[in-house]
Amino acid sequence: MRLAIVGAGIVGRAVAELAPDRGHEVVAIGDSTSAVVADGTGESVDVDAALSRKAERGIVGDDAPDDVLAADYDALVEATPTTLGDAEPGFAHVAAALERDRHAVLANKGPVAERFGDLRAAAADSAGEVRFEATVGGAMPVLSTIEDHGAAHVDAVRGVLNGTANFVLSRMAAEGLDYEHVLAEAQDLGVAEADPAFDVDGTDAALKCVILANVLSFGAADNIDDAREFTLDDADVEGIRNVAGSALDLAGEDGLTVRLIGEVADGSVRVAPRLVKRNSALSVSGTTNAAQIETASAGTLTVSGRGAGGEETASAVLMDLNRLQ
Amino acid sequence: MRLAIVGAGIVGRAVAELAPDRGHEVVAIGDSTSAVVADGTGESVDVDAALSRKAERGIVGDDAPDDVLAADYDALVEATPTTLGDAEPGFAHVAAALERDRHAVLANKGPVAERFGDLRAAAADSAGEVRFEATVGGAMPVLSTIEDHGAAHVDAVRGVLNGTANFVLSRMAAEGLDYEHVLAEAQDLGVAEADPAFDVDGTDAALKCVILANVLSFGAADNIDDAREFTLDDADVEGIRNVAGSALDLAGEDGLTVRLIGEVADGSVRVAPRLVKRNSALSVSGTTNAAQIETASAGTLTVSGRGAGGEETASAVLMDLNRLQ
Repeated sequence: MRLAIVGAGIVGRAVAELAPDRGHEVVAIGDSTSAVVADGTGESVDVDAALSRKAERGIVGDDAPDDVLAADYDALVEATPTTLGDAEPGFAHVAAALERDRHAVLANKGPVAERFGDLRAAAADSAGEVRFEATVGGAMPVLSTIEDHGAAHVDAVRGVLNGTANFVLSRMAAEGLDYEHVLAEAQDLGVAEADPAFDVDGTDAALKCVILANVLSFGAADNIDDAREFTLDDADVEGIRNVAGSALDLAGEDGLTVRLIGEVADGSVRVAPRLVKRNSALSVSGTTNAAQIETASAGTLTVSGRGAGGEETASAVLMDLNRLQ
Repeated sequence: MRLAIVGAGIVGRAVAELAPDRGHEVVAIGDSTSAVVADGTGESVDVDAALSRKAERGIVGDDAPDDVLAADYDALVEATPTTLGDAEPGFAHVAAALERDRHAVLANKGPVAERFGDLRAAAADSAGEVRFEATVGGAMPVLSTIEDHGAAHVDAVRGVLNGTANFVLSRMAAEGLDYEHVLAEAQDLGVAEADPAFDVDGTDAALKCVILANVLSFGAADNIDDAREFTLDDADVEGIRNVAGSALDLAGEDGLTVRLIGEVADGSVRVAPRLVKRNSALSVSGTTNAAQIETASAGTLTVSGRGAGGEETASAVLMDLNRLQ
């Protein structure tokens, strides 16, 4: 497929680098200040050159950012940073693709978590489709498994959906260290951001749960106009800042540990530190993510893997592109 | 879709029972001695009546078994028992569907493990597709995840692929019991067959690994005529009969345990009892299955769940039907 990639951060770059090997052509890539668009003679963009320019001169190319939206692509890959509230400019990028009857694949959680109803309405009016595997658990097959089983036949989903929080909790438990100490260590390693709030306060996990709640809700509804739409405001969210090392020690004595668990069940969305058995499927270590999908007819299916990272997230985008072909 | 179901055992029955709720019509179902086929007026078969007749009188209906193959269906579901060698009559059923340009979905491992090349050749000449998610790990998303990532981009697969053997090993380890004792218990519980050889000697796990090897081999080949085909003869298989309780005790002292691991990597297929860490993703308990998929760009993805059972296997058939729509 011919791809236009909006966003040239870690995910956009990884999509651009992996795409040619997977049979796709990159016809445009841009970030918030610049872009490069193929000239319409059937040639792809020179991805290596574009990424070198970005690294060296801070610009992807000499075209304007919005030129990417006007390129001759089959699928638009939306890989700009997640924004809350109106989810702009990500939503507008996706809407532009759908208006032109092109597909849109999102790595950006914003539009799927905050404007799911608008997204579905725009897709309903388009010959293009919207897919967003990358927004929940990177390349772990969470959304694809729900789709294959049918969202109407999935009762609940729960999981460890933020690698940074899981790194902190699993290391606190394993080494008997306190939160501040492990957080500083995670920041040194690049596992946590300088401002860790998005991860440790549970917002990132909550966005993923809201996306799952929307998928289950719209999948079970006979008519999308009747489906309940979820946004971050509907989630009950508690992060890990107040998890005491002493609580982990106590849990450990009983074969338990604490994980930041996101849960979507019975129309509610909840993210909170929860006790889990140390040998349970959700007691993953380090930055690993895990999710349990409770199905109506096949029991509980568990998936785990790397939930973040450029290549991992790009792989999920490529999974979606595969399904669109 | 209109379904013709060949095989009215635990899997065929579960497909017939779940299908109407998932938007499908059963237009024919048969076993080795009888069948019932809808009369062509657009009506479905009365599944409940057919299954009652089978339970009470031993016949599904008054039609002949081969009448199922001639029914007016969109997809044939092959759910007869797995046979080795020429994989008949399962292979002929699938071939008949493909010759009529209809889809075929297999729960029967035989044709996929023993005649993969023939199957791919028949599919290449047909407008119908062949799918077989149910043959590896029931409803666990193993083959679907490989397909989504692209078989050419999967380096290896390993896993616990037989619930009976895993039940025996995990219970031997947990209770300090010997093989014969636990096997007898498993037979009482219905977890093991009266003749347990197919499971405990590793044949079942090996068939699943051979299927995985074929999927990776044909997926990576530029031309299907160049792909290496695997059959059970290519697998190096050792079962669990000789695993001593004392070996499990010793392993346990080092935080290890023993699992029957099937592995497909570097063009070889191997099934054998292997030491695994007790907290590893492959150290699942009871009849649970687990598989690790090593991808080129997304690290190792792990899936686990119930690998057998009527509804679980039928759910995998329904996943395939979903992807055909």
